[in-house]
Amino acid sequence: MIHLDSTALRFQFENQKITLELLDQTLLPQKEHWISIQNHTELIECIQSLRVRGAPLIGVAASLGLAQAASTTSSNEELRNIFDQLYMARPTAVNLMNCLDKMKPLLSEPIQLSMYVEKAVEIFHDDFKLCEKMSLWGSQLIQDGDQIITHCNTGGLATAGVGTALGAIIQAYKSEKKIHVYVDETRPLLQGGRLTTWELQKNKIPMTLITDNMAAHLMSLKKITKAFVGSDRIAANGDFANKIGTYSLAVNCFYHQIPFYVVAPRTTVDSQCLSGENILIELRKPEEVMGVSGQFGKIQWAPQDVNCYNPSFDVTPAKLVTGWVLETGIYNQLDVQKGVFK
Amino acid sequence: MIHLDSTALRFQFENQKITLELLDQTLLPQKEHWISIQNHTELIECIQSLRVRGAPLIGVAASLGLAQAASTTSSNEELRNIFDQLYMARPTAVNLMNCLDKMKPLLSEPIQLSMYVEKAVEIFHDDFKLCEKMSLWGSQLIQDGDQIITHCNTGGLATAGVGTALGAIIQAYKSEKKIHVYVDETRPLLQGGRLTTWELQKNKIPMTLITDNMAAHLMSLKKITKAFVGSDRIAANGDFANKIGTYSLAVNCFYHQIPFYVVAPRTTVDSQCLSGENILIELRKPEEVMGVSGQFGKIQWAPQDVNCYNPSFDVTPAKLVTGWVLETGIYNQLDVQKGVFK
Repeated sequence: MIHLDSTALRFQFENQKITLELLDQTLLPQKEHWISIQNHTELIECIQSLRVRGAPLIGVAASLGLAQAASTTSSNEELRNIFDQLYMARPTAVNLMNCLDKMKPLLSEPIQLSMYVEKAVEIFHDDFKLCEKMSLWGSQLIQDGDQIITHCNTGGLATAGVGTALGAIIQAYKSEKKIHVYVDETRPLLQGGRLTTWELQKNKIPMTLITDNMAAHLMSLKKITKAFVGSDRIAANGDFANKIGTYSLAVNCFYHQIPFYVVAPRTTVDSQCLSGENILIELRKPEEVMGVSGQFGKIQWAPQDVNCYNPSFDVTPAKLVTGWVLETGIYNQLDVQKGVFK
Repeated sequence: MIHLDSTALRFQFENQKITLELLDQTLLPQKEHWISIQNHTELIECIQSLRVRGAPLIGVAASLGLAQAASTTSSNEELRNIFDQLYMARPTAVNLMNCLDKMKPLLSEPIQLSMYVEKAVEIFHDDFKLCEKMSLWGSQLIQDGDQIITHCNTGGLATAGVGTALGAIIQAYKSEKKIHVYVDETRPLLQGGRLTTWELQKNKIPMTLITDNMAAHLMSLKKITKAFVGSDRIAANGDFANKIGTYSLAVNCFYHQIPFYVVAPRTTVDSQCLSGENILIELRKPEEVMGVSGQFGKIQWAPQDVNCYNPSFDVTPAKLVTGWVLETGIYNQLDVQKGVFK
């Protein structure tokens, strides 16, 4: 029997049967509800509706989901079709494609379930270990007294391990550094206000929740000493895509001369993508901007028929980044110019 | 009989009786409900709960409220007490104090209701005329094809007239300039998402609603050509306080070399206040950051007991401002350095 257990994903393989469970992140923090995934259609719905989210965790979940599909069909053609659907579930995060690409060679051979499970479990464990390494590197950048701002959620809810940017923060706190975390609520989907606060509370880390537009004001008061964010895709030149609002935060850090770090696994690097201009930005439904929706109900405060713009991500140019933290180390502007991401 | 009628305030004086009605802005855009103000306690509640809001309109409403109080008491002492309470209803907007200071000489003479009404009505008309002048000056800065971002609400809902920053935009549109407005939703109280959208819809002006953290991304895509915001207090050196999020917008405009204008009446200038450092910033309840509240219900998405920071305003330093638009004209950095606000 194989059993995997992370903050937001559970997987079990026993008697040729796979159970895959995801913590429904749209219901947090009010309700901790696990969804039992029956098939790839349900998994894709979970990815697209952000019940499962975080670039690394999406890749892991899709891989385990493909293994589950292999347990229910003997048709290579059907499995290839499922593979393609999973591959296109969300466009911006490259981890999804990178993880599935590791599974791809299996598709050209007769279906052997154990091979699919083995590969998907390896992808899970790899992500877990990546988080350990990234968070250790990242935590080296954090000192006693640091007041760190973070955006969106990049912790255990977004990965198979302790997280990326939030992982570094949690790691620093666990190594007894005295820190305080400022959490951007991260409109429109409130991953900061709902999820990062939830994780920091579970870890008993001192924090203050703010609306995204308060960060600059705090910087002007010298209340913020560092920024740590994750990434959904890093281009060869160091430009990177991350949750909408990251770029605004980066500009403000730059203006206030506050070190700004991006923490992500190497699977996030897309060497084929030469610069941020080539990163496709997913546009989402106007309803998300017109109000909020979640366990607490569905609410709209904007007038009917108002035109909205709702990009899910933005691109931060390399020049605004102080350091890129990968599992392999910390890279600065010069390293990136020399081509570490190429 | 005297009858005053603006977007969010109605006043009537007939047979020695005053009726004062305010449009409850916490219920917009879902519901257009007018509150009939019975006494100063109700008025102060309306000011503090933001049912009536916008620095200029608060000053006008308080003046008319003092006149109403003068119609119900013959005690100078009581009226002075009411005056003091109104004076302290909100700390940041200087208009409130400036308007009431114009009423103050009346307090040292025997109560003559007509004098109070006359002075308060004059304050209303003055604000109306100020809006006309400011919006005409401001609209001169707007050209065909401009894509203008604005923050909070600075229109007819915030003043006795067409508004300040939004007034300039509305005036430009009325003079047939082809423009598009990007509206910051303005967390936490959503004055942009609820009120500015409502006003722009009423005026049929093309707009797009965004979350505050999207503005920088739009700037990087060159979708924004100008920014117009209001102000609650302008210091002698040109620094100014405005709704939280204004400073972040200003930094982003500066970084992207986008002209950034502040539009406010001269009553907003506080010459006694030497710089932004001396402006008192009102801190509000954490609940506003933990969720949203309004006609649509009261909702909290953040976990219980999470620590929040909720400044109502921030301060933008003069160096980030391209131009200050007052009723008397448009002032640049040099004018301000020369001391036009001293």
